[in-house]
Amino acid sequence: MTGRTTGRRGSGKPTIADVAALAGVSVSAVSKVVNGRGGISAPTRQRVLDAAAKLRWSPSATAVALRGARTRALGMVAGRSSDVLATDPHFTLLISGIESELAPADYGLLLHIVGEEPGAEERAYRRLAEERRVDGVILTESRIGDGRFELLRSLRLPAVLVGAPWQPDPVVSVQAGGQDAGIRAAVDHLVTLGHRRIAYVSGPEDRVHTVFRRRVFETALAERGLRPGRVLVSEFTAQSAVAAVRELLADAPDRRPTAVLFANDTMAVAGMNAARRLGFEVPRDLSVIGYDDLPLGELVYPQLTTVHQDLIQLGRAAVAAMFRQLDADRDEESPTPVPDPEVNPPELVIRESTGPAREG
Amino acid sequence: MTGRTTGRRGSGKPTIADVAALAGVSVSAVSKVVNGRGGISAPTRQRVLDAAAKLRWSPSATAVALRGARTRALGMVAGRSSDVLATDPHFTLLISGIESELAPADYGLLLHIVGEEPGAEERAYRRLAEERRVDGVILTESRIGDGRFELLRSLRLPAVLVGAPWQPDPVVSVQAGGQDAGIRAAVDHLVTLGHRRIAYVSGPEDRVHTVFRRRVFETALAERGLRPGRVLVSEFTAQSAVAAVRELLADAPDRRPTAVLFANDTMAVAGMNAARRLGFEVPRDLSVIGYDDLPLGELVYPQLTTVHQDLIQLGRAAVAAMFRQLDADRDEESPTPVPDPEVNPPELVIRESTGPAREG
Repeated sequence: MTGRTTGRRGSGKPTIADVAALAGVSVSAVSKVVNGRGGISAPTRQRVLDAAAKLRWSPSATAVALRGARTRALGMVAGRSSDVLATDPHFTLLISGIESELAPADYGLLLHIVGEEPGAEERAYRRLAEERRVDGVILTESRIGDGRFELLRSLRLPAVLVGAPWQPDPVVSVQAGGQDAGIRAAVDHLVTLGHRRIAYVSGPEDRVHTVFRRRVFETALAERGLRPGRVLVSEFTAQSAVAAVRELLADAPDRRPTAVLFANDTMAVAGMNAARRLGFEVPRDLSVIGYDDLPLGELVYPQLTTVHQDLIQLGRAAVAAMFRQLDADRDEESPTPVPDPEVNPPELVIRESTGPAREG
Repeated sequence: MTGRTTGRRGSGKPTIADVAALAGVSVSAVSKVVNGRGGISAPTRQRVLDAAAKLRWSPSATAVALRGARTRALGMVAGRSSDVLATDPHFTLLISGIESELAPADYGLLLHIVGEEPGAEERAYRRLAEERRVDGVILTESRIGDGRFELLRSLRLPAVLVGAPWQPDPVVSVQAGGQDAGIRAAVDHLVTLGHRRIAYVSGPEDRVHTVFRRRVFETALAERGLRPGRVLVSEFTAQSAVAAVRELLADAPDRRPTAVLFANDTMAVAGMNAARRLGFEVPRDLSVIGYDDLPLGELVYPQLTTVHQDLIQLGRAAVAAMFRQLDADRDEESPTPVPDPEVNPPELVIRESTGPAREG
């Protein structure tokens, strides 16, 4: 009456305890072998693997068997400062989409905003895995040289990446098709309005999407026979957008840009108002285009022309992909294939912050 | 080797199992008695309570004993639609503050945005409690007639409310002192600028803070010998702010307000631009004041005069109060008193959206 020793698994499937018993080791030793953690001798490791094979305890069922019952939570770890939610509405919209898909399944999102200290993100993932706190994790902000996919595989923690991995990787990822459509449409729109000197204020170059979009911008200009526009790399903040605009507009009238693309809406709105304070009317003297299509863009005056990304739908797609992955792990006899969820490609929303180029 | 039956409690304190053994009942029966759930006869109930008393197993330690080890997560349930994060930056800032206090303690925030369906919020709390998924929950948006405090006590789930309870209640709550200071300073500022016809666009009247602030507004006007200004009740959305401004500015020039206070910044910015589209310059023809001091207010042109609330600090204070409460529960011999955390009172931030009243 002081505890329960029997599990509640209804099926006749082999358990980790069966593998441990057959191999003559502890459950935690089996766990260590499967998770690739240290402290297990090579012969013991072989015995565990042999036992697993004999019992047809398939590796694809491992994560679930180790986790036991579903936790009804997905995890999200942000190696960012805690004000990321306040300053990056992009992140917030994604979480809105995630929550809208989690709620009907009675799932919650366990959010860890761990700061930018090196190793903090990795420690958080290890703890989530060791304490079996979540069924899987959703990753955002795909980075160049990202080590998270490998780490999570070694932890046997299912993952879904929002965005594209930096190099070919088996991680499940969700992304809208036609990723280049937004920037291309923005450049087309400006060229049609007569702009020839178009600048781009990019985000930090350690992220996959900033590097990708910058290339799309440069390619789109080249394809239209335009000279490369100025590209300034910013920190994704309002302050850095203001600094960028000051730098761009300090150029001589026949050299300074007549239009600027910003890598997100917050920067675009900050840049628009910085221009106005310098005496440049938007769009009369300067056309401005943002990226993301946050609610902010409709609130300001002039309303912001921007590239719409369906971030809420992307958050939903990430959860759908995770659920499919978890279902597939659970039923290794007939794994459900995980199709790419449908998310609309980015598209240009034309409002008031873009207009005909002024004679320079 | 197939499981663990012994706990890991190092201290000599009595456990729920000791109480169950002495009373001659199961652990789950003790749990039912303590949680006030049904299915336990009166004599059995008495036996459990006697055993608890004999072993000095204090009710204040109950929640912790039932929960076992800390979960290293706090919960937050929002009975709102999943786009609340995208549309209500107030909520987002609070979460930023919460996360900044949780991260150093290796805690995460388990977020459930369950939609507005009746009963969904209650079900989520029940599940969090039954599955022991969190150490406690943080409550926001104190409502008139709020039933959450009682529910959480019956679930023995520690709670901290951000804001004031609707009626005297033992729930632990955090709030800045001088709650009326912000609206009072806003009215003073406008009166000093010569405004006599001041309107207020309030939020939904089922919330404690909206009703409170509306009263502060009305009192402040009366104290300055001004006639009651028009008060419009809105839905806290940009759309309802636009509708309110249209209604207010449709009045005859000698009757319409020369200044408007809005219950949040998003409404103020939307209202400001709606006025501009109707041909009213801000602040020349209309002064506008917001509430919250979101990053948005500094990005727009003119920059928004608003009441600053230290939402990040409020989120931090909520977590600090929760940790003190959990520590006190854990050590019933010398409970740490829970002091009110320090949060700065709301204060007016004067920017560009307010100016001298125009002759009407």
